[in-house]
Amino acid sequence: MKFKLTSVDPKSAARTGILQTGHGEIQTPIFMPVGTAGSVKAVHQRELEYDVQAQIILGNTYHLYLRPGTDLLERAGGLHRFNGWSKPILTDSGGYQVYSLGANRKITEEGVIFKSHIDGSKHTFSPESVMDIQRIIGADIVMAFDECTPYPCEYAYAKNSMNMTHRWLKRCVDRMAETEPRYGYEQALFPIVQGSVYNDLRKMSAEFIASQDQPGNAIGGLSVGEPHEDMYAMTSLVCGILPQDKPRYLMGVGTPENILECIALGIDMFDCVMPTRNARNGMLFTTQGIINIRNERWKDDLSPIDATLGGYVSTFHSKAYLRHLIINKEILGAQIASIHNLTFYLWLVSEARKQIEAGTFTTWKNNMVKIVSQRL
Amino acid sequence: MKFKLTSVDPKSAARTGILQTGHGEIQTPIFMPVGTAGSVKAVHQRELEYDVQAQIILGNTYHLYLRPGTDLLERAGGLHRFNGWSKPILTDSGGYQVYSLGANRKITEEGVIFKSHIDGSKHTFSPESVMDIQRIIGADIVMAFDECTPYPCEYAYAKNSMNMTHRWLKRCVDRMAETEPRYGYEQALFPIVQGSVYNDLRKMSAEFIASQDQPGNAIGGLSVGEPHEDMYAMTSLVCGILPQDKPRYLMGVGTPENILECIALGIDMFDCVMPTRNARNGMLFTTQGIINIRNERWKDDLSPIDATLGGYVSTFHSKAYLRHLIINKEILGAQIASIHNLTFYLWLVSEARKQIEAGTFTTWKNNMVKIVSQRL
Repeated sequence: MKFKLTSVDPKSAARTGILQTGHGEIQTPIFMPVGTAGSVKAVHQRELEYDVQAQIILGNTYHLYLRPGTDLLERAGGLHRFNGWSKPILTDSGGYQVYSLGANRKITEEGVIFKSHIDGSKHTFSPESVMDIQRIIGADIVMAFDECTPYPCEYAYAKNSMNMTHRWLKRCVDRMAETEPRYGYEQALFPIVQGSVYNDLRKMSAEFIASQDQPGNAIGGLSVGEPHEDMYAMTSLVCGILPQDKPRYLMGVGTPENILECIALGIDMFDCVMPTRNARNGMLFTTQGIINIRNERWKDDLSPIDATLGGYVSTFHSKAYLRHLIINKEILGAQIASIHNLTFYLWLVSEARKQIEAGTFTTWKNNMVKIVSQRL
Repeated sequence: MKFKLTSVDPKSAARTGILQTGHGEIQTPIFMPVGTAGSVKAVHQRELEYDVQAQIILGNTYHLYLRPGTDLLERAGGLHRFNGWSKPILTDSGGYQVYSLGANRKITEEGVIFKSHIDGSKHTFSPESVMDIQRIIGADIVMAFDECTPYPCEYAYAKNSMNMTHRWLKRCVDRMAETEPRYGYEQALFPIVQGSVYNDLRKMSAEFIASQDQPGNAIGGLSVGEPHEDMYAMTSLVCGILPQDKPRYLMGVGTPENILECIALGIDMFDCVMPTRNARNGMLFTTQGIINIRNERWKDDLSPIDATLGGYVSTFHSKAYLRHLIINKEILGAQIASIHNLTFYLWLVSEARKQIEAGTFTTWKNNMVKIVSQRL
């Protein structure tokens, strides 16, 4: 997996690049829509490709492992073949869902024992098994198995957990080295920096992760409830240590504002359920600010959802029509709002990319942060 | 509104035709997807047009009147402008929903007083108000306000009700004559034959409806729980009386088998929620028969949903993937299954049309009825 830095902003740590995968190029900075169980909720693959213009989507190992399961995914020839998405896929390690969804989880040095949130059945994830599962899913980018610490987290717990995550990482690296790509294209491992909100732990973890010399690196354990200042401080600190010539992925972040600020700190890749989850509740991210389409204010507004953004659904349908659909719990409301929000997120990172290339990123970003975070 | 009969089957009452509307031609026999509250559930307008190849959709006056309401629809310039569907729209009269959804309804000669199923607010529908509402919605085809009798229904009730429906029809005809099309294109009234399952009442009603000389005619009060034999007998009797040179619409029918049998009896237009409602529960209509995609049997079946049918979603996605989505309650499952089922229904009527034109309809129909009604 090759990453080529194509430009660097003179006034911030923002940069643009191209990541080459077995399923095509990704232009960074990039946002990755979350396709939890093999589907980005309420958005068809064709819409992801042509309307949203997504370049890579994310799959959740925990969900895919439980359903449809690795047997079927292997028989299908991997997730790309199973769900018909032919561009790159990144899978998380399942760790986050094990902690947030799995009942009665028990963490040991060996791995994590947990019960399925679906039927209560008992399962074990270890660094080795999670590498094997992601091989079978056919992820282009495989995430290391880690413990994502909650917020707040005591220093001692955060330190012990980080050290275990590092030991687990070595096992992940070994397992990846011992096994072959499953379907003939490269599968690259991204290790994950942990350390909660503690400067010394984040520094230690970033140095350890950098030393592993993997094709890309990720920052985990943020966007879990800590103040934004902490998220930015940790991201900045870690980006200063991780190698320049490899992509940096900030996991689970975030709002449009978070994304712009973290691009400025040197992040290349993002994922978050916010654009799709909030869409289903009627919260729209637009080029003018945030809209709660359920508000009475939009009832008679026959103007396009977002004329400036462009794209089919955002210009074709009116706010009043989308409000009507969402209020009436019509599935089409979730569809249109989800396509719109994802289109906005992909527009935002693509615009950031253009501004970085033009050397105008910082001024643009400072202005755009105000616009995209205001509530209309 | 012009209807041109283009061919008649030599061995049955089946026929093909072209119905000209202000929003383009409809080739009959035709199936009309149901777009209850301004959206065909889980199917985007673009998919309706290009995947399903729908030629006309239905809107429900009761739902549209309550939400978004006539004020907003009028301001938008009608439903076509509001929901972005630029082909023909037919609206029902709201009568059926008033009886099935409205609480504490009271039927009088003047009209029906009912309470909204949404907020309990009190409303009145009369033949005149329902014509006005459909004018504002902007329906190309406006249905007369009728009482849809339940099954079973006592003879005396059915007779009185039919007579009231006839008196209401005269008021509908008068109101349509007194008022202008709202948005510059023709809005045609279709009266509705009632009479439950009683031969003499159906005959009387069909003769009365035919005498009104409206641009098209409908048969209501069937597919409400009566045996299929009764549905077919009433349809046949009524088709024998309604004029040959006007389109005949059988309301709320039905299964693929029902549709084929009723095409053979001389019906030109159909609507039913079955393809979309059943899709959301995982019931698929295919060229090979009926599939309950939730069954374990399809778990590992990586073959296309329906290779013979063709069309994007039916050939691109596998049964196993669709099953996975439906089992996991992914919205995309409802989307794909709904597009598939509607594509199948539109294929079925288009295939019937070709067979009628070729003079091979009856043989084809007798064979196809067996195939489409078998459970796989």
